[in-house]
Amino acid sequence: MELTTIGGLVAGFVFIVVSIFWGDGDLGGYVDGASIFIVFGGIAAATVVSYPLSVLKNLIKIISTAFKAKNVDLSKEVDNIIDLANVARREGILALEEKVSGMDDPFLKKGIMLIVDGSDPELVRSIMETELDFISERHTMGQAVLLQMSAYSPAFGMIGTLIGLINMLAKLDDPSALGPGMATALVTTFYGSFLANLVFTPLAKKLGIMSSEEYLHKEITLEGILSIQDGENPRIIREKLNAFMSQSQLRQYEQKNSAGEAAGDE
Amino acid sequence: MELTTIGGLVAGFVFIVVSIFWGDGDLGGYVDGASIFIVFGGIAAATVVSYPLSVLKNLIKIISTAFKAKNVDLSKEVDNIIDLANVARREGILALEEKVSGMDDPFLKKGIMLIVDGSDPELVRSIMETELDFISERHTMGQAVLLQMSAYSPAFGMIGTLIGLINMLAKLDDPSALGPGMATALVTTFYGSFLANLVFTPLAKKLGIMSSEEYLHKEITLEGILSIQDGENPRIIREKLNAFMSQSQLRQYEQKNSAGEAAGDE
Amino acid sequence: MELTTIGGLVAGFVFIVVSIFWGDGDLGGYVDGASIFIVFGGIAAATVVSYPLSVLKNLIKIISTAFKAKNVDLSKEVDNIIDLANVARREGILALEEKVSGMDDPFLKKGIMLIVDGSDPELVRSIMETELDFISERHTMGQAVLLQMSAYSPAFGMIGTLIGLINMLAKLDDPSALGPGMATALVTTFYGSFLANLVFTPLAKKLGIMSSEEYLHKEITLEGILSIQDGENPRIIREKLNAFMSQSQLRQYEQKNSAGEAAGDE
Amino acid sequence: MELTTIGGLVAGFVFIVVSIFWGDGDLGGYVDGASIFIVFGGIAAATVVSYPLSVLKNLIKIISTAFKAKNVDLSKEVDNIIDLANVARREGILALEEKVSGMDDPFLKKGIMLIVDGSDPELVRSIMETELDFISERHTMGQAVLLQMSAYSPAFGMIGTLIGLINMLAKLDDPSALGPGMATALVTTFYGSFLANLVFTPLAKKLGIMSSEEYLHKEITLEGILSIQDGENPRIIREKLNAFMSQSQLRQYEQKNSAGEAAGDE
Amino acid sequence: MELTTIGGLVAGFVFIVVSIFWGDGDLGGYVDGASIFIVFGGIAAATVVSYPLSVLKNLIKIISTAFKAKNVDLSKEVDNIIDLANVARREGILALEEKVSGMDDPFLKKGIMLIVDGSDPELVRSIMETELDFISERHTMGQAVLLQMSAYSPAFGMIGTLIGLINMLAKLDDPSALGPGMATALVTTFYGSFLANLVFTPLAKKLGIMSSEEYLHKEITLEGILSIQDGENPRIIREKLNAFMSQSQLRQYEQKNSAGEAAGDE
Repeated sequence: MELTTIGGLVAGFVFIVVSIFWGDGDLGGYVDGASIFIVFGGIAAATVVSYPLSVLKNLIKIISTAFKAKNVDLSKEVDNIIDLANVARREGILALEEKVSGMDDPFLKKGIMLIVDGSDPELVRSIMETELDFISERHTMGQAVLLQMSAYSPAFGMIGTLIGLINMLAKLDDPSALGPGMATALVTTFYGSFLANLVFTPLAKKLGIMSSEEYLHKEITLEGILSIQDGENPRIIREKLNAFMSQSQLRQYEQKNSAGEAAGDE
Repeated sequence: MELTTIGGLVAGFVFIVVSIFWGDGDLGGYVDGASIFIVFGGIAAATVVSYPLSVLKNLIKIISTAFKAKNVDLSKEVDNIIDLANVARREGILALEEKVSGMDDPFLKKGIMLIVDGSDPELVRSIMETELDFISERHTMGQAVLLQMSAYSPAFGMIGTLIGLINMLAKLDDPSALGPGMATALVTTFYGSFLANLVFTPLAKKLGIMSSEEYLHKEITLEGILSIQDGENPRIIREKLNAFMSQSQLRQYEQKNSAGEAAGDE
Repeated sequence: MELTTIGGLVAGFVFIVVSIFWGDGDLGGYVDGASIFIVFGGIAAATVVSYPLSVLKNLIKIISTAFKAKNVDLSKEVDNIIDLANVARREGILALEEKVSGMDDPFLKKGIMLIVDGSDPELVRSIMETELDFISERHTMGQAVLLQMSAYSPAFGMIGTLIGLINMLAKLDDPSALGPGMATALVTTFYGSFLANLVFTPLAKKLGIMSSEEYLHKEITLEGILSIQDGENPRIIREKLNAFMSQSQLRQYEQKNSAGEAAGDE
Repeated sequence: MELTTIGGLVAGFVFIVVSIFWGDGDLGGYVDGASIFIVFGGIAAATVVSYPLSVLKNLIKIISTAFKAKNVDLSKEVDNIIDLANVARREGILALEEKVSGMDDPFLKKGIMLIVDGSDPELVRSIMETELDFISERHTMGQAVLLQMSAYSPAFGMIGTLIGLINMLAKLDDPSALGPGMATALVTTFYGSFLANLVFTPLAKKLGIMSSEEYLHKEITLEGILSIQDGENPRIIREKLNAFMSQSQLRQYEQKNSAGEAAGDE
Repeated sequence: MELTTIGGLVAGFVFIVVSIFWGDGDLGGYVDGASIFIVFGGIAAATVVSYPLSVLKNLIKIISTAFKAKNVDLSKEVDNIIDLANVARREGILALEEKVSGMDDPFLKKGIMLIVDGSDPELVRSIMETELDFISERHTMGQAVLLQMSAYSPAFGMIGTLIGLINMLAKLDDPSALGPGMATALVTTFYGSFLANLVFTPLAKKLGIMSSEEYLHKEITLEGILSIQDGENPRIIREKLNAFMSQSQLRQYEQKNSAGEAAGDE
């Protein structure tokens, strides 16, 4: 569970509800069937026109990843690759096949299988990088859809308000009805505004960060696989992969590993 | 038929109409000759000033592609190319001429004819890539026109509202006429808003996705053609082309092909 | 004459005028000396501060190109270059000097003269590409000025409206004067809005398309010149240059040329 | 202490407070519990949804750097590297180990240790550049969060105002309550506006400048380290590194160093 | 004196003042202490938070360049370099030292000194390009500050208007005071609007053009210096440098030089 996603959303809704009561508002005035209908319906319709079914079907799955914590432990990843590098050095690259069969990272597995098969390094890099690009592209598409929905939200909020205003103004004979009429008309603008700024844009941002972390993780894996194929010294590989970690991650990691290091390498 | 395009547009219009009735509005107030005239006329005029005739003539054709489903089956495409690669291996590159004559993909055909003619690989790549760029450029232009129309829509909506307000305010002596006058003035803003957010922007987005899928399809074809010319092993070609498919497409594809695979290759 | 530019502008103005009358407006209320003064004067002043005289002097000339049709017939251009390639093959590169002297495309002429002079291919490419960049840069600057004017337009429209509102509100004692006062104040917003969306932005867009068509035309010329210098086979040159044309242009062109082809080449 | 950050913020707040009093306003009307609650709460909630905990935990630390003056004295840095280059020339690269042990720039230290270890120049560059990229990425992330908060600020200001308006208009029977009600509703827009334009955007800008200065500093260090490893003449190294300083910095620096120069270099 | 900068600013202010009088406005209503205080103070405070002192100190100097005409005569520059090239050809590169000592372009001088010293061409290019980058970066920073101030202007204009509205609405009992109150509140929006659109954005644009002209000038100088070091034929150098000039500049230049050409070269 990515608690910040759930927690932030719940907190945001609570803040809004409390703020309505605090201002002596009536929550009922904020729940209006026609308003929900036009804003949510309009956003949904515009989104369906904007993207093909194949993209929309992925959307729920991609959004759900924003709610699942993914503790990509880069240092564990590096250790893992160094282990494989040591095995390859001592027992030869073919020995990796057995080692890798029990792992559950499909990207790492595929890469190791390619070098076990004796594929050309250029081909390994090209196949793995194309795969990397596609993973990143799918995530980017998920974000793009959310950002587009974020752009449609205030638009359909305004369309709803325009409909409310036109309906009300067209038969304006009783000035005292102006207030409540405008209040109702503004509810759709309110919906559009918080959907864009509390839901769609924040989710898109979170997905973006998570996606780039996953990309980094896979880049390290690829760099490691190519170094193993190249027969590089595991100590040098560790140096290279460590460079991918930020200073602070590295410090934590070095403290953890300072004891067991000497044994594992070379 | 791309059902999401048609379905989304129809749903969006229905949502708007229902929402007008739900708010006790009178649909007649939303259909105003002068308003339609200035918004649609203004957008059309500005678009005609913005683009030369050659671009505008293509526009209808390009927009219509957003309504036609195009089931680019990448896995079939890959199978197709592997077939050609097997023929080239067994019977020589010249045998491809006959094979390709019955196909209806002009891009694939042109590429195969170039390698049958014995053109230099560099020249094949350069000719095919230039063609690829132009296809993508024509699509990009279609999208650009739609996005520009999407930008003109709220602008002419506002110009219409300004005209309505100025006309009304200039002779404002009866305050009770203010309401209906403003209602009419706001109708153009409403038109501009839904044209931009339900029609032009969503169509531009859909075209963009479709265009990049077609581009990917053609990229795979080109990669395959160059590999065939290079005399690469069909199994390696399949590996390379598969990398272009996303994980999920690949999984579907592997299930389908797991049976018939062994026969087709090598 | 580029009819879309003139036609679109005229149509846009007609739509606006008709729409004013249709709404029972008084055209006189839309022509206001002070409003014209602040909007046009303000845009002009801001533009003069923004760009040096050398850029502004070019502006009228660059804008006027948006009104002149330029039928860049790419297929004729290609034929032209193939002719030169055939001459160079049969009679040697020096024979091009005479051939080119009667042509009126200064870019082609300069390039041919460079290869007649026996300049190094790298130098020819570098000199011609720098020239290409500068032509494109001058056009880009023209567009940039128009887009900036398009950005200043609503700004000075709003400044005019603010002045109108402040003047009116400061001495608001007679509420019945509010309507006509606001009507006048809004006229500048109206000016700013249609200047931006019917005049400046559309002209900038049209210039952009025309400029990129001219760029493409010159790119083809350059590619052809370099191929001639390289002594390439005219048939190969035609293949390469055809790749620059979009599919549809090519189809038209192939129909026209299918008869006379055999004679001209080789 | 970076005085401009603190000073500017304090001055901005003072300007606003003075301006409220100057306009005969009542400061109390600007401090409203519900308004603070929805604007600050909403921004916080949206930010928490937008970024994972690891990013948010760094935020305070990164923001605090905008308040700490960092007098990156580039000329001292250059002198420092030239000293090391002279040592390396006279006593060999291994002598650098001792020299560098007393320094407190971890980036410089790491680089020198890598060349003392005899690592391949390509590897040194790749490791150090990856580290450089990550430092810059962390800063970029800090800025991105602040800019996103700056975008959320007016949004939640508007959401607060919408709540205020809807609450007030829904039960509008006493027109005289309209004024004070709207005043309260506008307070949240006011909060959102100054948070965005006095706090979040300016801090993001300051961080951006500081970060690019630190990046430049580290780039010079890296260039110097690689030149030392390459065994280049200290005088040439100084020339190369000086080029990184802007004209004016250089002039100051040359005046300071014109005396002591001859002695230090070879 | 760059007359367009001064002239445009003065004209813009005159247009605004005339337009105020034309609309029967009272200029006094536009000069309000509190309004000036919050808009100018707020912009200044936000700018000081946004940039470190070193950047702000340069600002006045950089802005002042927008007021100084700089007639970069590119053709003179080219002649100058050709002269140096001829000297280098006839008397050797060392003869340039004396020639260049009397010139006042520090960039040209530095470059010539580097080649007189016999530096490696790669080093000369790298040192000079780094210098070029820094000059351009300093100008870019000046523009960035002005554009940021242009963004802060309407923001603090709106903050001022919000303060005015809140103050007025909070104690709204006399409806007749509404007009003058709103007039005063709108004055800050008016300030923000013309500061952004008549002062800050136009100055930033002008600086941008001037900076890119200076960059081009220095690029030509660098290209020339490297060609001289390379011992290229002065006629070829002239060809290369001429390519940097736009068609129209070149035409003027060729007319001027057609007489004296033959003598100067070779």
